[in-house]
Amino acid sequence: MDRCAWRRVEPMGLLTNTRTVKIEWGHCDPAGIVFYPRYFEMFDASTTALFERALGMTKFQFRKAYDFGGYPMVDTRARFLKPTRFGDLVEIATSISFGNASFKIEHRLTKNGELAVEAFETRVWVTQDPDEPLRIKAEPIPREVIEKFQVA
Amino acid sequence: MDRCAWRRVEPMGLLTNTRTVKIEWGHCDPAGIVFYPRYFEMFDASTTALFERALGMTKFQFRKAYDFGGYPMVDTRARFLKPTRFGDLVEIATSISFGNASFKIEHRLTKNGELAVEAFETRVWVTQDPDEPLRIKAEPIPREVIEKFQVA
Amino acid sequence: MDRCAWRRVEPMGLLTNTRTVKIEWGHCDPAGIVFYPRYFEMFDASTTALFERALGMTKFQFRKAYDFGGYPMVDTRARFLKPTRFGDLVEIATSISFGNASFKIEHRLTKNGELAVEAFETRVWVTQDPDEPLRIKAEPIPREVIEKFQVA
Amino acid sequence: MDRCAWRRVEPMGLLTNTRTVKIEWGHCDPAGIVFYPRYFEMFDASTTALFERALGMTKFQFRKAYDFGGYPMVDTRARFLKPTRFGDLVEIATSISFGNASFKIEHRLTKNGELAVEAFETRVWVTQDPDEPLRIKAEPIPREVIEKFQVA
Repeated sequence: MDRCAWRRVEPMGLLTNTRTVKIEWGHCDPAGIVFYPRYFEMFDASTTALFERALGMTKFQFRKAYDFGGYPMVDTRARFLKPTRFGDLVEIATSISFGNASFKIEHRLTKNGELAVEAFETRVWVTQDPDEPLRIKAEPIPREVIEKFQVA
Repeated sequence: MDRCAWRRVEPMGLLTNTRTVKIEWGHCDPAGIVFYPRYFEMFDASTTALFERALGMTKFQFRKAYDFGGYPMVDTRARFLKPTRFGDLVEIATSISFGNASFKIEHRLTKNGELAVEAFETRVWVTQDPDEPLRIKAEPIPREVIEKFQVA
Repeated sequence: MDRCAWRRVEPMGLLTNTRTVKIEWGHCDPAGIVFYPRYFEMFDASTTALFERALGMTKFQFRKAYDFGGYPMVDTRARFLKPTRFGDLVEIATSISFGNASFKIEHRLTKNGELAVEAFETRVWVTQDPDEPLRIKAEPIPREVIEKFQVA
Repeated sequence: MDRCAWRRVEPMGLLTNTRTVKIEWGHCDPAGIVFYPRYFEMFDASTTALFERALGMTKFQFRKAYDFGGYPMVDTRARFLKPTRFGDLVEIATSISFGNASFKIEHRLTKNGELAVEAFETRVWVTQDPDEPLRIKAEPIPREVIEKFQVA
């Protein structure tokens, strides 16, 4: 008898992406460490890098291909555990989970393998009125988009 | 006899500060709305504006006067309820509460009286090794600093 | 007979605009002074402030009113004479001169009356293909726009 | 007989550096193209990348090793020939020439081999009073620094 029959089937995982970022002089403040809004710039680029990898297109291209406006931020949080400074090379690992019209992102920024910053995002998939940028409407994330994040 | 004599009816409040910010073209992204890391830049300036108002000095001056390095971010969260775009004038109202070596900030960014973004910060009061910016140490917030935030 | 009849004594001048900018912690780099790309952000906002004042509308509104895409930079130069740091209040005085499809801007950033930075811009008035942001075309600046900059 | 005698001696050249930059969503403005101050951020990082390559150290390290404050900008100019947009990969090639206490930098930003932006910088080598960031003094660039840029 298979005593492991109760084991949950290994679920289809979702693509993650890791990229290396150089901390620049211009990211840092008079204390000599990263001015924290710059981390959010890095995280926004990391979220897009994950989508670009999954969809095999740039954001410019996939906004057209899927006829949508973008994925504006609804809620984000970041915890800053260790400072980083210009010259540091950091790794940002980014993972995703999908809802219907929204998705959640987690970033883990590490330096020499140690967690320095972790961040959480909730974003929505939206269409936008081309003449009125404030007219934004959440839309279901296309099935085919979500499928492209699935790894065997 | 005043049966409420023991109760502080009007608690000592803490100073709050409100400032007006113009949303600029350069704050906005290709969707025509504020690129969310720019809000964190505005919030950092709002936290400093509150301190400057309470202490009656610029941040350059009060870092020297109280011999400390700054108040780096430990944890921040923001919720984005309504988009804003270039040309908008928004109000950012900032309030504070103090712990021992840390303090919490709340920002409410409104447009035409409606809440557009709210943000929460936990920061620490630190000293920093001048030769090694990564060597940062939390210190108790001086009593006299906290007192300057108290309003009758 | 007035021998000076031919001479314009008081030439029609063009509107200038001066605004006060607070130098923020987040504008500064580990040397404690403004990271120079931040000055260009301030100058871009100053150019727009001049147009907004002349046209009596926000940039969001006047791009629609005059049905054009904006005034991208063609050539800019800045000279940095004195450093500024967080807490400083600076004045930016902005003046303009018009060509056919282009215009020139000069910014003078002063601190306590002393020139700290001066910058020069050449920009073009353009229309842009809404589906292809790289398809940009210079257009003559509307007569009525230029007229609004004229001061008696 | 040396048939190459007529050949001009290959002059000692100076190191150049080329790096690839991804244009991000957050670099772009509501016109969908790079907001020009972002190019200056890229150029500042490119100048530092050239120094880091020549000196074999990060900027954090070489400011200590050569006991100086940095190389603030004195004068910069940029010409914008072609717009770029999010998703584009661009190359920035950076070259240098030295004066006594100052140096000049030239950046050529190309996209698909075509020049999109060119920029020129004059910077000074300075020491800075640690207690007063506005007290900056130009110093001769150390001979050994310049020598490290020389390529056979």
